[in-house]
Amino acid sequence: MDNSPVVAQADASLANYTQENIHLVESAVGLNSPPKEKIGSDFDSRMMLRCLELARRALGRTSPNPLVGAVIVKDGEIVGEGFHPRAGEPHAEVFALRAAGDRARGATIYVSLEPCNHYGRTPPCSEGLIQAGVAKVVVGMVDPNPLVAGGGIARLRAAGIEVLVGVEEEACHQLNEAFVHRILYKRPLGILKYAMTLDGKIATTSGHSAWVTSQEARSEVHQLRAACDAIIVGGNTVRQDNPYLTTRQVEAHKPLRVVMSRHLNLPENAHLWQTADAPTLVLTEKGANPDFQELLLKQGVEVVELTSLTPDKAMAYLYERGFCSVLWECGGTLAASAIAQGAVQKVLAFIAPKIIGGSIAPTPVGDLGFTTMTEALSLERVRWRVVGSDCLVEGYFPKKANSQ
Amino acid sequence: MDNSPVVAQADASLANYTQENIHLVESAVGLNSPPKEKIGSDFDSRMMLRCLELARRALGRTSPNPLVGAVIVKDGEIVGEGFHPRAGEPHAEVFALRAAGDRARGATIYVSLEPCNHYGRTPPCSEGLIQAGVAKVVVGMVDPNPLVAGGGIARLRAAGIEVLVGVEEEACHQLNEAFVHRILYKRPLGILKYAMTLDGKIATTSGHSAWVTSQEARSEVHQLRAACDAIIVGGNTVRQDNPYLTTRQVEAHKPLRVVMSRHLNLPENAHLWQTADAPTLVLTEKGANPDFQELLLKQGVEVVELTSLTPDKAMAYLYERGFCSVLWECGGTLAASAIAQGAVQKVLAFIAPKIIGGSIAPTPVGDLGFTTMTEALSLERVRWRVVGSDCLVEGYFPKKANSQ
Repeated sequence: MDNSPVVAQADASLANYTQENIHLVESAVGLNSPPKEKIGSDFDSRMMLRCLELARRALGRTSPNPLVGAVIVKDGEIVGEGFHPRAGEPHAEVFALRAAGDRARGATIYVSLEPCNHYGRTPPCSEGLIQAGVAKVVVGMVDPNPLVAGGGIARLRAAGIEVLVGVEEEACHQLNEAFVHRILYKRPLGILKYAMTLDGKIATTSGHSAWVTSQEARSEVHQLRAACDAIIVGGNTVRQDNPYLTTRQVEAHKPLRVVMSRHLNLPENAHLWQTADAPTLVLTEKGANPDFQELLLKQGVEVVELTSLTPDKAMAYLYERGFCSVLWECGGTLAASAIAQGAVQKVLAFIAPKIIGGSIAPTPVGDLGFTTMTEALSLERVRWRVVGSDCLVEGYFPKKANSQ
Repeated sequence: MDNSPVVAQADASLANYTQENIHLVESAVGLNSPPKEKIGSDFDSRMMLRCLELARRALGRTSPNPLVGAVIVKDGEIVGEGFHPRAGEPHAEVFALRAAGDRARGATIYVSLEPCNHYGRTPPCSEGLIQAGVAKVVVGMVDPNPLVAGGGIARLRAAGIEVLVGVEEEACHQLNEAFVHRILYKRPLGILKYAMTLDGKIATTSGHSAWVTSQEARSEVHQLRAACDAIIVGGNTVRQDNPYLTTRQVEAHKPLRVVMSRHLNLPENAHLWQTADAPTLVLTEKGANPDFQELLLKQGVEVVELTSLTPDKAMAYLYERGFCSVLWECGGTLAASAIAQGAVQKVLAFIAPKIIGGSIAPTPVGDLGFTTMTEALSLERVRWRVVGSDCLVEGYFPKKANSQ
């Protein structure tokens, strides 16, 4: 847990966080509000979307910090741009101000997240903007951190700067949904991803699963992985599928590959132990199979022993480690356990229009203990999107079942 | 089988039908051809779509005949319309000519299917059009019956009438896909319909399934039923779900509800035995449970004994009975058997965005004997459509696996 001190510092201020705060902040960031009227002009929207485009350049690299982009506009022209590249480096506003130089005076700055107002590893951005003499600040969304929320905006207004808040707010929120979840619930956002046939199977009766979906869908998965901090599978997936769980893109962020295995009854040779491809962490329980731990460590695989290995404990650990988003690419048994413990909030289901059959073929989610169809967890904010020949379904578990 | 003589008469001419013919006709009706250029003007298209609208008024009622609509246009105005209401009644052209009267002379007639050229229960429509003095005939699609195919068109042209073929051909074909299948393969079109959760289950582990999908999706199913000639389930579905399988619409066609049960180990009371709602047929094997047969007959349920009860035998029987389309609303075991025997050509899968879980919960398709994912049956001509909160996936099995 060599990363944890840094994160502990960043989050120490949140220690007294209550459920009430959570509702306040959810409301502040628009999670529970009805659709709003458009805020700002079309030009404002274009500039804010440019901020998001810039922010995305650091996809997967900024945790525990958010993705933020900034654009400075003077006389209708962009005179400076920036994005936050990773934790410990300057914020987006700083890069944009540097690029704009003197032209920042009297200019408008667009920034996808409320400028910070506190001293961290860098001085507060609010002060930097005041000193640079910007005339107007256009903010995408309020910072979900309750110690910041609105503070940066108030500071700017107190200094006589015009501030417009909420331009392309939904898109800003979407980009940082994992960061927001981390702040609000003190856990990474858990995303359950699976690929199944049109008759609901993730593999054949004999366990074969290469491939359920089309090349296009698999490319989408690689992009999705690059945007996450970690990918979790269980021992069964390692034994059955021997996956790589890589992003297949040279330049892309390589998320940490995490294996949950209580007894370390894992194969000695597995693609996941090839740590030259990407880092791997094995989570296990105290004292499990020391010889195998030795074998893993020799190959550069990190091993962490937890007192009890459950999805929630794994997520708590990954939170401490500074992660915002964790992709669950596990089989049905672990998926069911993760859902039951509230370790996943979001589902990304790829459905391939093919029929494989098999009454005992594995399906995406194991036992949840439901006996009537009315107990089913109905997803919210559902989107259906065609990807290649397949369909990608995105949705969120109802809050009740998943809040901590 | 009191309807079979009628059908035998209609289809006797197809007795010597060969596989070669099938390919010819598939090609003629555009099944295997690449996308074509638009045929006819926008006005022609509008009139042809009006023909289809008229044709649809008889949805579910015309088998073994096709759905056909006709529109007569004189000086840019519709002067007569008609559709084929049911087998034994006049063809669409006859109704349209009657409505147009003398105004048919020199007019253009639009008809969604090639006019017939043979004496059946009515005189050939080609002769009727020639006698009425129409100047032009616009045809949606060629008749798939190889004894007709092109004959009606040739007769009209020989009489000096201008004929345009292929206006809105795809839409015309789509409306009569079941009729075309019947003609080409001497079986009704089998459509497998099921509703599953986003994690691939059609019921909970305890078998509860009311309801998987939204009200909108269920309404869509009622409409779908009304367009079909029969709905098939197995004994398991009767025992487990006690379904109604009705269309819930007063005016709609009531398809025959068919139960396949080898041993007639069925409940004495079931909604399906209420034949005041809609007719019910139980297919069984010779000599099965005479007492239960008696009980069924007393309630007005029709019972037919086949020498061996398989999906293909059931479809062969329903073909003889004059049916064009059969909806399979059965469970996974029977569905797998129907797929394996080529008794279903099309899939309509409703997917509800909810998670129910259950490693032994039933899934839509049982064992097909496939062990590797590459063996999966990839559907063709796939369409994804949102219906209420659910998604409806439509697709066709590859021809190879399903031709007779």
